[in-house]
Amino acid sequence: MKTIGVLTSGGDSPGMNACIAAVACNAARKRLRVVGILGGFDGLVEGRGTELDEKCVSDIAGRGGTILQTSRNGDLKTRLSASDIPDTFGRLGVDSLIALGGGGSMVAAKMVADTGFPVIAVPCTIDNDIEGTHYTIGFDTACNHSVRAANDIMDTAESLPGRVFLIETLGGDTGHLAVASAYAIGADAVVVPELKADIAGMCRRIKTEMDSGKACAIIVIAEGAGPSQKLADQIAEVTGRRVRPTVLGHAQRGGHPSYWDRTTARRFGEMAVQLLLDGGSGAMTALVGGSLTDVPLCIPVGASRALDVDTYHIINRSAQ
Amino acid sequence: MKTIGVLTSGGDSPGMNACIAAVACNAARKRLRVVGILGGFDGLVEGRGTELDEKCVSDIAGRGGTILQTSRNGDLKTRLSASDIPDTFGRLGVDSLIALGGGGSMVAAKMVADTGFPVIAVPCTIDNDIEGTHYTIGFDTACNHSVRAANDIMDTAESLPGRVFLIETLGGDTGHLAVASAYAIGADAVVVPELKADIAGMCRRIKTEMDSGKACAIIVIAEGAGPSQKLADQIAEVTGRRVRPTVLGHAQRGGHPSYWDRTTARRFGEMAVQLLLDGGSGAMTALVGGSLTDVPLCIPVGASRALDVDTYHIINRSAQ
Amino acid sequence: MKTIGVLTSGGDSPGMNACIAAVACNAARKRLRVVGILGGFDGLVEGRGTELDEKCVSDIAGRGGTILQTSRNGDLKTRLSASDIPDTFGRLGVDSLIALGGGGSMVAAKMVADTGFPVIAVPCTIDNDIEGTHYTIGFDTACNHSVRAANDIMDTAESLPGRVFLIETLGGDTGHLAVASAYAIGADAVVVPELKADIAGMCRRIKTEMDSGKACAIIVIAEGAGPSQKLADQIAEVTGRRVRPTVLGHAQRGGHPSYWDRTTARRFGEMAVQLLLDGGSGAMTALVGGSLTDVPLCIPVGASRALDVDTYHIINRSAQ
Amino acid sequence: MKTIGVLTSGGDSPGMNACIAAVACNAARKRLRVVGILGGFDGLVEGRGTELDEKCVSDIAGRGGTILQTSRNGDLKTRLSASDIPDTFGRLGVDSLIALGGGGSMVAAKMVADTGFPVIAVPCTIDNDIEGTHYTIGFDTACNHSVRAANDIMDTAESLPGRVFLIETLGGDTGHLAVASAYAIGADAVVVPELKADIAGMCRRIKTEMDSGKACAIIVIAEGAGPSQKLADQIAEVTGRRVRPTVLGHAQRGGHPSYWDRTTARRFGEMAVQLLLDGGSGAMTALVGGSLTDVPLCIPVGASRALDVDTYHIINRSAQ
Repeated sequence: MKTIGVLTSGGDSPGMNACIAAVACNAARKRLRVVGILGGFDGLVEGRGTELDEKCVSDIAGRGGTILQTSRNGDLKTRLSASDIPDTFGRLGVDSLIALGGGGSMVAAKMVADTGFPVIAVPCTIDNDIEGTHYTIGFDTACNHSVRAANDIMDTAESLPGRVFLIETLGGDTGHLAVASAYAIGADAVVVPELKADIAGMCRRIKTEMDSGKACAIIVIAEGAGPSQKLADQIAEVTGRRVRPTVLGHAQRGGHPSYWDRTTARRFGEMAVQLLLDGGSGAMTALVGGSLTDVPLCIPVGASRALDVDTYHIINRSAQ
Repeated sequence: MKTIGVLTSGGDSPGMNACIAAVACNAARKRLRVVGILGGFDGLVEGRGTELDEKCVSDIAGRGGTILQTSRNGDLKTRLSASDIPDTFGRLGVDSLIALGGGGSMVAAKMVADTGFPVIAVPCTIDNDIEGTHYTIGFDTACNHSVRAANDIMDTAESLPGRVFLIETLGGDTGHLAVASAYAIGADAVVVPELKADIAGMCRRIKTEMDSGKACAIIVIAEGAGPSQKLADQIAEVTGRRVRPTVLGHAQRGGHPSYWDRTTARRFGEMAVQLLLDGGSGAMTALVGGSLTDVPLCIPVGASRALDVDTYHIINRSAQ
Repeated sequence: MKTIGVLTSGGDSPGMNACIAAVACNAARKRLRVVGILGGFDGLVEGRGTELDEKCVSDIAGRGGTILQTSRNGDLKTRLSASDIPDTFGRLGVDSLIALGGGGSMVAAKMVADTGFPVIAVPCTIDNDIEGTHYTIGFDTACNHSVRAANDIMDTAESLPGRVFLIETLGGDTGHLAVASAYAIGADAVVVPELKADIAGMCRRIKTEMDSGKACAIIVIAEGAGPSQKLADQIAEVTGRRVRPTVLGHAQRGGHPSYWDRTTARRFGEMAVQLLLDGGSGAMTALVGGSLTDVPLCIPVGASRALDVDTYHIINRSAQ
Repeated sequence: MKTIGVLTSGGDSPGMNACIAAVACNAARKRLRVVGILGGFDGLVEGRGTELDEKCVSDIAGRGGTILQTSRNGDLKTRLSASDIPDTFGRLGVDSLIALGGGGSMVAAKMVADTGFPVIAVPCTIDNDIEGTHYTIGFDTACNHSVRAANDIMDTAESLPGRVFLIETLGGDTGHLAVASAYAIGADAVVVPELKADIAGMCRRIKTEMDSGKACAIIVIAEGAGPSQKLADQIAEVTGRRVRPTVLGHAQRGGHPSYWDRTTARRFGEMAVQLLLDGGSGAMTALVGGSLTDVPLCIPVGASRALDVDTYHIINRSAQ
């Protein structure tokens, strides 16, 4: 093996750049070349790449987003047949691949690996919804955004009591980000796409607590369970309280990666290079039981990790 | 004069606590007592107060919100007649008042001052919409929230080009916060309640620019010109681009006050105590032409400051 | 069991308040009283306490430091004999104890538990140096401070190439915080109290790399390996480069607790209440292998966790 | 005029990139070319430049530092004689110059302007020490760093009372940054290079206040009045208190520019282009009396602005 291609695919997440930097630096020390493929799997098909040496990546690790850009086109099969793979990579001059991305990207990585081309995948998504790993790069930074919003809201909530605040998180069609955020900030309820919420019951509980003197209530809703304005209207109607929504939107996906995301991104990046050097392929770097390891990209690759239902019920104070 | 009452009224703003601390510390050095009136003008009517010495305020200046809490009931006239004023303040043991708040609070402060009771007002609102001063405490911190959101969004915008982002700011029924934020972040357009926007023209311009290679567009909308979802739908329809909104909500009103808000809050607080000592009343501390000064609380007190229309047009690239 | 006493001891760490809030709220739901003991073990001896209900803790979880204050006097034995314990707690009206703190506090907690009084300890220190748990509350927030400083420094480092930057972290007489920070930010070297550094070799390596075109170098030094000015002078002499130190100091110990610290603080706090209810004592809540659990406060309680020497050598590019 | 050269010189400051972006975008709208000169006046002499179109600057405005890099070599006279100027700029293909930087850079800009070549200077330094303008780009962001450090320190200061904290700011040989920071955070004393401090008296005052129950003290020292360790030792000796220093170092010069710095940077950048178009030269954009304007780069160009001695004495509670 002489040249590693690296690409970022799907939604970007903070820490992708730190992982790219780790791949480039670790490869350089092992005297391997690295080619950054631009624009995700689309860019792979189109043969767009650029050499990445240590100098190129010297100041990127602390930046959000991805310098390689990404694309949402996970449906690699419609664009690339197995027989095209050798030529596609040949044009870029790479003989192995490290693919960073979310669930859809893992599927595409598996498709490439199945053709015999060496591929290691690195799970990167703020949704933390990939089966096989307890952690995906970007989740911690995204959760810190929720916590910061809650801190800011508490300042005004305590100053003018009697209000209800909604925080809408990202998370696509999963609720990991919402549940983790809600538990951390001590939210009074959380609404996610995976589970049908008893909105009426929740509103009555909030009303009872606030009528008994609770100064404010904070409810977290995942974007996939929205629209949050509808929920805000329902809460306002039942509680008779003013309800103010904060929608984090794509601001939640940006910003400098946190300590944990930079650490994990670097660990995963260094591990991915070593796995390729050791002849590995078809695997994903993973955090399992507190340890860094790798797991096979097997079926059902890209499956969504199950929600932490226990924590959901703790937040919602509901019987389990 | 022996005892100053201090209260915060209307929407809280970051820097109120720093101003309260400045009042308490400056008064203590001049051997005056300070009573914090709880819950704004409502608390005044109800006679709720607490002594504020230097120790009480030693760790509050850096916190958002107001430890005195506030109330939205600006309509003091319906609750308090001029003849009640002496007794109302007598019960609290205060013989002068420093009132922190927005436009509505300035009206209430004027009403009290008109009865002959010594009152100095300090303009505090993130809306920066009070006639007579170029600056109101909290505005800078609130604008920094917009800038931070834009920085975060840019990370992801550059990584996955072709999208449009909306940022909805607070600002009540004024657009100062939206215009200042939009200019600072280099937004492509801004929509405010004071001026009728040519939404269709704006969408066409954004479409043209993006079709010509511009990676992303950011549009700022004031809450008073919302709902932002409606605007998002219009932009999506015309441009054919995915539009992602971020609604800052009340998170924009919280957080640690910035350097500038702490500085101005302290200046205004120290000045307010001195003005009372010098026998002043019916005045508002103000920033005019870069200098700290005081202006009379005259009619039309509480009037909204005119929008900076020139900057509005620079942002929207429109003829003036 | 009816009333839990809770205290914070040793150096404060961000997340202590979130843990106190979790203890108070969880206890309230289980119809237990909570008394906050003020000023750590000193306050325990002096019988200083205050009732903590849910309302008291409603707005503290997001704040750094500890509302209960702390004291550095870990040497409980000189102030309290085993026979005093029943009376000491009797005066405060508490029949069990949750003690938050670092290594010294674990020793004191063990001493109390050994008298037969029910005690659960919660590891809280930004140093992350307690044997028996992989994580102590506050470490993540403290590491985020290092990362933020590095991000800030990189802006100017890239703008005016050719300089060396030192970042001095806290960490007492251990290097966990320095090593974790240095790995995350991709520092060029790290100096810790546990291991003798080859300063001359390190300086020569930095000089060689920079003379070959590397734009800047960042070196992390733990406070226990300082003074950093001495190191700065050595580096400047060998490399001929200007060396600029940043000393995080106690700013690294403050600030809002991060997502991870709030989550772990709440988990540990809820677990501590449950452990007491289940009749447990003499145990410390812990994170082991990615799972929350509890471990006995056995000898050598308070021992320092061993440094991650592998990571140290990766950072310093040294043979192991 | 057809092509503007833009360069950044001296110490970088947050907002330089926002100003570069404003120059490039405003020039583009006026159909002018912009060439970014790399590495300050050194790069000018060496003829290093790169074209800057709107696309190049689309994502830089929110970043600290300067993409054009800078150099500390303000001594242009030794490298460039007046007769070289036409050729120097001719090689870069530029016929006018916008120079961003501090006091030294203003001197260099003046030297170029005196040869008849059109030059507009923009004051950029976190030191805010340039005569002729009340504001230099970067100062607000740098002050926000001080405030954030003070907020962080307060968390731990309130938790473990009885300590003294030192914050060392940047500022070169001036104390503007230290005084402004100290006033904003309510520091108990400030030490600057311009004025001889009564250290012994200050220490006695701090001791008296703390012995009377004050929980903590914060003292700000400008780097030019250091070393801060010496001051820390003096304070510790007199007060008998533990003194903990935080040295902001170059972290204070980085980070995303604040709202105010982005606004001012954009205003100054747009104004500089317009001034050149209007035939202006030898002028510096400035903030005077709250208004944007321009002032001549006359002698003593580069002179240090006088310290705000009144505020210094308010902080130090000293007779004036």
